[in-house]
Amino acid sequence: MKLKNTTLIFIIFSFIGLSFQNKQQIYTPTWDSLNARPLPAWYDQVKFGIFIHWGVYSVPAYAKDGYYAEWYWNYLENPSSDGGAVKDYHTTNFGANFSYHEFAPMFNARLFNPDHWASMIEKSGAKYVVLTSKHHEGFTLWDSPQSWGWNSVDVGPQLDLVGALTKSIKSIPGMHMGLYHSLYEWFNPLYLIDKASGSPPTSNQYIQDILMPQLKDIVNKYEPDVVWSDGDWEQSSDYWGSKEFLAWLYTNSTVKDSVVVNDRWGSECRNIDGGYWTGSDQWNPETLIPHKWENCYTMGFSYGYDENEDISYYQNTTYILQQLVSTVSCGGNMLLDIAPNAEGVIPINMQERLEEIGNWLNINGESIYSTVPWRVQNDSTSKNIWYTTNTSDPTSAKAVYAISLEWPESNYLDLNSPIPTAQTSIQLLGYPKRSNSPSHYLDFSTKHKGNNAPIPGLTIHLPLLGPQDYPPYDIYVFKLLNVE
Amino acid sequence: MKLKNTTLIFIIFSFIGLSFQNKQQIYTPTWDSLNARPLPAWYDQVKFGIFIHWGVYSVPAYAKDGYYAEWYWNYLENPSSDGGAVKDYHTTNFGANFSYHEFAPMFNARLFNPDHWASMIEKSGAKYVVLTSKHHEGFTLWDSPQSWGWNSVDVGPQLDLVGALTKSIKSIPGMHMGLYHSLYEWFNPLYLIDKASGSPPTSNQYIQDILMPQLKDIVNKYEPDVVWSDGDWEQSSDYWGSKEFLAWLYTNSTVKDSVVVNDRWGSECRNIDGGYWTGSDQWNPETLIPHKWENCYTMGFSYGYDENEDISYYQNTTYILQQLVSTVSCGGNMLLDIAPNAEGVIPINMQERLEEIGNWLNINGESIYSTVPWRVQNDSTSKNIWYTTNTSDPTSAKAVYAISLEWPESNYLDLNSPIPTAQTSIQLLGYPKRSNSPSHYLDFSTKHKGNNAPIPGLTIHLPLLGPQDYPPYDIYVFKLLNVE
Amino acid sequence: MKLKNTTLIFIIFSFIGLSFQNKQQIYTPTWDSLNARPLPAWYDQVKFGIFIHWGVYSVPAYAKDGYYAEWYWNYLENPSSDGGAVKDYHTTNFGANFSYHEFAPMFNARLFNPDHWASMIEKSGAKYVVLTSKHHEGFTLWDSPQSWGWNSVDVGPQLDLVGALTKSIKSIPGMHMGLYHSLYEWFNPLYLIDKASGSPPTSNQYIQDILMPQLKDIVNKYEPDVVWSDGDWEQSSDYWGSKEFLAWLYTNSTVKDSVVVNDRWGSECRNIDGGYWTGSDQWNPETLIPHKWENCYTMGFSYGYDENEDISYYQNTTYILQQLVSTVSCGGNMLLDIAPNAEGVIPINMQERLEEIGNWLNINGESIYSTVPWRVQNDSTSKNIWYTTNTSDPTSAKAVYAISLEWPESNYLDLNSPIPTAQTSIQLLGYPKRSNSPSHYLDFSTKHKGNNAPIPGLTIHLPLLGPQDYPPYDIYVFKLLNVE
Amino acid sequence: MKLKNTTLIFIIFSFIGLSFQNKQQIYTPTWDSLNARPLPAWYDQVKFGIFIHWGVYSVPAYAKDGYYAEWYWNYLENPSSDGGAVKDYHTTNFGANFSYHEFAPMFNARLFNPDHWASMIEKSGAKYVVLTSKHHEGFTLWDSPQSWGWNSVDVGPQLDLVGALTKSIKSIPGMHMGLYHSLYEWFNPLYLIDKASGSPPTSNQYIQDILMPQLKDIVNKYEPDVVWSDGDWEQSSDYWGSKEFLAWLYTNSTVKDSVVVNDRWGSECRNIDGGYWTGSDQWNPETLIPHKWENCYTMGFSYGYDENEDISYYQNTTYILQQLVSTVSCGGNMLLDIAPNAEGVIPINMQERLEEIGNWLNINGESIYSTVPWRVQNDSTSKNIWYTTNTSDPTSAKAVYAISLEWPESNYLDLNSPIPTAQTSIQLLGYPKRSNSPSHYLDFSTKHKGNNAPIPGLTIHLPLLGPQDYPPYDIYVFKLLNVE
Repeated sequence: MKLKNTTLIFIIFSFIGLSFQNKQQIYTPTWDSLNARPLPAWYDQVKFGIFIHWGVYSVPAYAKDGYYAEWYWNYLENPSSDGGAVKDYHTTNFGANFSYHEFAPMFNARLFNPDHWASMIEKSGAKYVVLTSKHHEGFTLWDSPQSWGWNSVDVGPQLDLVGALTKSIKSIPGMHMGLYHSLYEWFNPLYLIDKASGSPPTSNQYIQDILMPQLKDIVNKYEPDVVWSDGDWEQSSDYWGSKEFLAWLYTNSTVKDSVVVNDRWGSECRNIDGGYWTGSDQWNPETLIPHKWENCYTMGFSYGYDENEDISYYQNTTYILQQLVSTVSCGGNMLLDIAPNAEGVIPINMQERLEEIGNWLNINGESIYSTVPWRVQNDSTSKNIWYTTNTSDPTSAKAVYAISLEWPESNYLDLNSPIPTAQTSIQLLGYPKRSNSPSHYLDFSTKHKGNNAPIPGLTIHLPLLGPQDYPPYDIYVFKLLNVE
Repeated sequence: MKLKNTTLIFIIFSFIGLSFQNKQQIYTPTWDSLNARPLPAWYDQVKFGIFIHWGVYSVPAYAKDGYYAEWYWNYLENPSSDGGAVKDYHTTNFGANFSYHEFAPMFNARLFNPDHWASMIEKSGAKYVVLTSKHHEGFTLWDSPQSWGWNSVDVGPQLDLVGALTKSIKSIPGMHMGLYHSLYEWFNPLYLIDKASGSPPTSNQYIQDILMPQLKDIVNKYEPDVVWSDGDWEQSSDYWGSKEFLAWLYTNSTVKDSVVVNDRWGSECRNIDGGYWTGSDQWNPETLIPHKWENCYTMGFSYGYDENEDISYYQNTTYILQQLVSTVSCGGNMLLDIAPNAEGVIPINMQERLEEIGNWLNINGESIYSTVPWRVQNDSTSKNIWYTTNTSDPTSAKAVYAISLEWPESNYLDLNSPIPTAQTSIQLLGYPKRSNSPSHYLDFSTKHKGNNAPIPGLTIHLPLLGPQDYPPYDIYVFKLLNVE
Repeated sequence: MKLKNTTLIFIIFSFIGLSFQNKQQIYTPTWDSLNARPLPAWYDQVKFGIFIHWGVYSVPAYAKDGYYAEWYWNYLENPSSDGGAVKDYHTTNFGANFSYHEFAPMFNARLFNPDHWASMIEKSGAKYVVLTSKHHEGFTLWDSPQSWGWNSVDVGPQLDLVGALTKSIKSIPGMHMGLYHSLYEWFNPLYLIDKASGSPPTSNQYIQDILMPQLKDIVNKYEPDVVWSDGDWEQSSDYWGSKEFLAWLYTNSTVKDSVVVNDRWGSECRNIDGGYWTGSDQWNPETLIPHKWENCYTMGFSYGYDENEDISYYQNTTYILQQLVSTVSCGGNMLLDIAPNAEGVIPINMQERLEEIGNWLNINGESIYSTVPWRVQNDSTSKNIWYTTNTSDPTSAKAVYAISLEWPESNYLDLNSPIPTAQTSIQLLGYPKRSNSPSHYLDFSTKHKGNNAPIPGLTIHLPLLGPQDYPPYDIYVFKLLNVE
Repeated sequence: MKLKNTTLIFIIFSFIGLSFQNKQQIYTPTWDSLNARPLPAWYDQVKFGIFIHWGVYSVPAYAKDGYYAEWYWNYLENPSSDGGAVKDYHTTNFGANFSYHEFAPMFNARLFNPDHWASMIEKSGAKYVVLTSKHHEGFTLWDSPQSWGWNSVDVGPQLDLVGALTKSIKSIPGMHMGLYHSLYEWFNPLYLIDKASGSPPTSNQYIQDILMPQLKDIVNKYEPDVVWSDGDWEQSSDYWGSKEFLAWLYTNSTVKDSVVVNDRWGSECRNIDGGYWTGSDQWNPETLIPHKWENCYTMGFSYGYDENEDISYYQNTTYILQQLVSTVSCGGNMLLDIAPNAEGVIPINMQERLEEIGNWLNINGESIYSTVPWRVQNDSTSKNIWYTTNTSDPTSAKAVYAISLEWPESNYLDLNSPIPTAQTSIQLLGYPKRSNSPSHYLDFSTKHKGNNAPIPGLTIHLPLLGPQDYPPYDIYVFKLLNVE
């Protein structure tokens, strides 16, 4: 019952959001005001996006097992944090006198082709992209006046990477482009001065001179659909100026009606304030969350390119799709990370996963895109079954999707939650493959008490097929029409 | 009938080979003498090996569509050969004053882990490795005294890569280690002087000072199981000194009993003289060849690492296995190429294919390893079916493997060639998965004339299974016992 | 007569300066207030300093004939300004994709030895040093928080060069250490934004975020004896905030009593406002200037290291000393530039000139250090004779130094200006060399009218010596005692 | 008397040389035959040449005090030889994984202008040049086929430096061009194999494959006037094949009549066999040597460019000229070394010395060029006086030059050796400066016994001049006509 209520709240909340969408709204820099802003509708509909971590860390592209390659610089300066692995590697391979800044000229992006990236992402079925405009290293992928000489136009690629990819992504109908931006920079001296000024800091030079100009710059120049904040944990939102920024973003910016933000705006904010929730990295609660949320997931371990990860680090397409299904079922979006290398090439194994996910979504997309959580998420008897539904309107005709992460050995699939009706019919998406097939409804059984009263649940009789006739990637979507 | 005869010749030839194996034999530098040497038995048994192209070309790692990345230098110096693509790329990214030699310090191999490579190769089911000890660029992966300053010990990795990988591969029981070595070097000045001396050349300084010392050096130092010659086409074997080298190799070297060579020993040699035949690159004749041969195959296009190849260039595991099956069926070995990058990392997508091939061979290896061609290779009615058999002795009990590259839509598999007997039984390798399964023989039908006389051929009744119960990668091996 | 008056004004002005020296004085940001500050006494006494231009431009170290190597970046971005010479050179040698920022890692300073520099400078007889803490390129030789990643601690040397040299110079008694700092930065995006905002600029983000924090940082951290401003010409002092900075420097900084500044604080300031005057580069007016001034002189052409200047660009020691003499005679100081290379080596030919100047000053220093201009500067009849005197007090006993830039062919030196008295005696500094010499006074004649009334002027009878007995470098100092 | 005889032998020897010059002569590979070849006349006449050490060592350009920068690689591999100084420096500045070969791309020669070099050398008064075509590192400054990838055409400059400088030097009338070539290469693996084969070596692969082809190549391609051998000390001339090479050079090469060689052809040869003697480096015996010899002298310490040498290492022009004078007086030539840097710039301080030596030779050249040793070299009473004479024919009229390395304090110069005659007259070269001077003969006194018999020797009465009228650089040449 509890779940049902939160679903309802969620649904109502979404409607409020839609109704406010086109009004001129003024937000003030308080969480009460900011949190009241409804989520722009597009974000909940798209479900699946691509995260891109790309920066100077893509050059050394190294971390010890269980550590993040994009944190290379931090490990280098704080050797105790990874047992000295990066420091040893760095000294051996680049020399003790080689500073991290000196990697930037080697970030050459010489094979970077933004249209090709966009095309690969489109084929994956993803509907939005979030690119690291600046990670904790502070290097910006656009020519930020606040990061002179430490950006992709002044050194290395000599290209406005943010602008180039934004253009390519936005040229694809239905695709949204977002920007990740780290609040803190590990070693920016202005931040270090502020940090050393007190707890909380008594100075905010970094905020005034660097952070706010940069955040406004990317909004004004690139009109992102998502502002994905990170690096929030060392200070509260008061220091970061997050509320002031969001009030401006929601009220004054050109993207005020469409932009979506996450919740990483201060050490106290996550899963409380801001836009959609992100919890921890790779957060997948497997239970309905009463607020829009996102699972930022990686195919391997690191978010940034890591040459030290071999095949054993990588999830296969089936596993990734399992995350997508459970995430969407519980009200989340999945933001799946890819890690281009210093030359601007997306590793082939990542390209393959994108392509395979796209293959699956081509068949099963209706169970994902624009769905809403159903009254239950995970079937109580058959494990590995997640539900979605194609409408949040309880009164309208609708489909319920039971997505099974495996094919039952018995060839009978028991679903405990759906309540069949006289009109109930069931299809397996992607079956049959050939369009001239006479019928595509599956047999099923219902259950009855002694008095013939129906008992919730039904059993689907699965077809046995030749191997080439099964839907791919071992994830099967059963579309239930007219169930309750 | 013709095929049958050549098979017989093949079989007899192999036996002769075995009988000679342990005798002290003296070979003279004539093709008659050299060609009479039997192929050491191990080579025909292993069927599947891994080719590794690694060198300075792994640094720029670039070619235009349809060109080979390992030929970068040649395109650079001869821009007309690829329409100027490499020259443009080079000038833009490295500058007009940057010579190819200057890439060598960037060939760092900093993540090279030969034991890890060996382990990945072992898991693929491959039984031999052929590493480019020197490609046409002339850079040697060992400290060749004839290539001072242009080898992996003097610059770049500062490691004996040949030695390191040889040690790791040979430490795995049953694994063989071979070395590729290019006869010519595009730009070695001594070769160019010889080449300019006449046609055929009247001088052979390059052979005396460089080639012969190098070939003997790799044999003496690394005792390779294969010497894979290449770069033969510009001169005859007379110039290259091939016959003299092979006479020494077969008669005097420490590997005289075990070493296998290919046929690229002079412009006139291929598919005629030397050891096993290699035809052209990626040669897969799909018909029985009356001499041992090898298909050197690539997953993508280039043999060397090519960052400019995206996913569309790569064959998937199923396709690669199809090549393996048809190759083995027709008497060949498959040497599948992988292309490590400059850091010494085997791209993850190549690792994945290795792993998947290994998965398939774990189930179906008995239809590949140590098999011999059957009396027919490709079933005459059911297309996409290739045969192997586990013994070349026509009198002994044997299995015939009918390897189908697809699952028939009808679920009935017609085989036209096998002649069933009363004792015939049929299994599908990898079915059923679970070991406690009561029976694993498949039903089949035989055909009869009106007079009930059996007609060659049989029809296998295929089981319909849940998707998880089919053998993987869409290549199905039917083991026919007691057929003729 | 006019000259005499200006001398008097100068002298009085200096005395006022001394009297104010130890009072607590508050300056306001107006030129009237700031200009009223007396010059700290040390500066006028030292006469001779060393200018050091060192930065990222020391890496390419190139300019076309008649252009400045330290302007490399500017020529690169504005090829019309030097006829494309630098752009061609850059493209040929570093490639079109090589940005100026990427030179920074090559600025290695690996042989930099600040104590050795200090020792060489000390031997030259110089008493102060001015180092480019930041030139127009914006690269700082200390770890400026406002120039993160574009300073000598973050890239290249990985050393606080300002701090290291300051320490070494200040450890030498009597030596003063100053810092050059460019107001503008050619390509700092914040400056470019301000500049584009209007004329005069309506924004001053660059001043707030970069310039003021940097100027105060070098004062607070390094307590320089000179703040040598430059790059002033594009904007007025209003924009630069110069007056506010100087008011703070003179009133609040720890160096308020000792620091000396120049006059390059705005497009309207030079030779009008601020501290000592500098006119144009290499300014040597050869006439008495009624305000303390400085001649910043180069040995070759460029201020920064220029490998493209051969011997024909370099002045010899005699010529440099001639500049020193005429400069001091007319009330100026000479700031002689040296240009270390990227490795931190002062070119040997510059070391030689430093050593030779020191040799001359060892003998003749009393005619330079702590002198004041005499009532005439340049003798009216004998050309190439410059005067100084050792006291500004007209009533006290004093020496007048007549410094001849040549030895007269006649061996008689006519001086038209000094008025001999009965007590007049004359010495040639450095003669005789040997200390046990019985007498060192030179003969001279005076002139008389018909009535025997003395006429101003005297004729010195010069000794003829062996070549080894002449004072060196062809500049001869005659010390006149008791002349008027 | 002994000296007189050896002079005579020397003179006769020279005449024999001249008479043989134009005959067709066949030399055999024995020292008796080879040593009998007369020295081509030009070499003894020119007296003064320029040595140029330029190679990959010009990149790191470092040695510890008292060690040679051109030996960097040797110190790096044998750290005990310099106390580990280079190894420490290398590891700190380039990293432990940076091999010496990897310096070659940094040897860029981007400012190399051979005509400008030639012009500077011409102005110095030098008449021949010896360039290191290959030093002990093995890197060749031309595209040697035997040093592929390790020469200035394949990497770094991408220029034939030997060819370019040869062309420029030879285009100047009267200038001769020679080539230094090291017999051994520290780390050439073929040499190391030979060296390890026995003592003396039993193999000579290095000689056959590398050394002989290279020596003949430079002779055939560049027709050098000097072949300056070095690196001879580890093996005898038998191993090096020196005699065979010289027999070919003297008999068959295109330069057989003009080429001059030194004596470094084997561990047993120096000052015994071959061409002119070189003794040790910087050999200046200060006594007449009965065989033509050469003093290869450095301005600083190292022969190669050494950034770690400051001014204290450098000899001034006077000191260098003193060496030239004593060398020529004793029958030697001086080969003065200059050390261009990696960019191809001759350090300015070296340019200055060249220019100053040229200034001196412009005035005093007749006492140097084409002179022969006199019957005494060094005056027995007045120290620092060296003699030359302008003819070796004792019967002809001649001048004797008494070259004084100082100006006597007394202004009287006593010469003990010349015997005046009634016709004796004496001039001081360069005095007077002005051409309209009435007389330029100096007064002198002769000495007589009691019986008025003349005693050998005379006393020159020196003029006292203004400083500008003395000849420069403190070295004074007195030309004595008609003395005995």
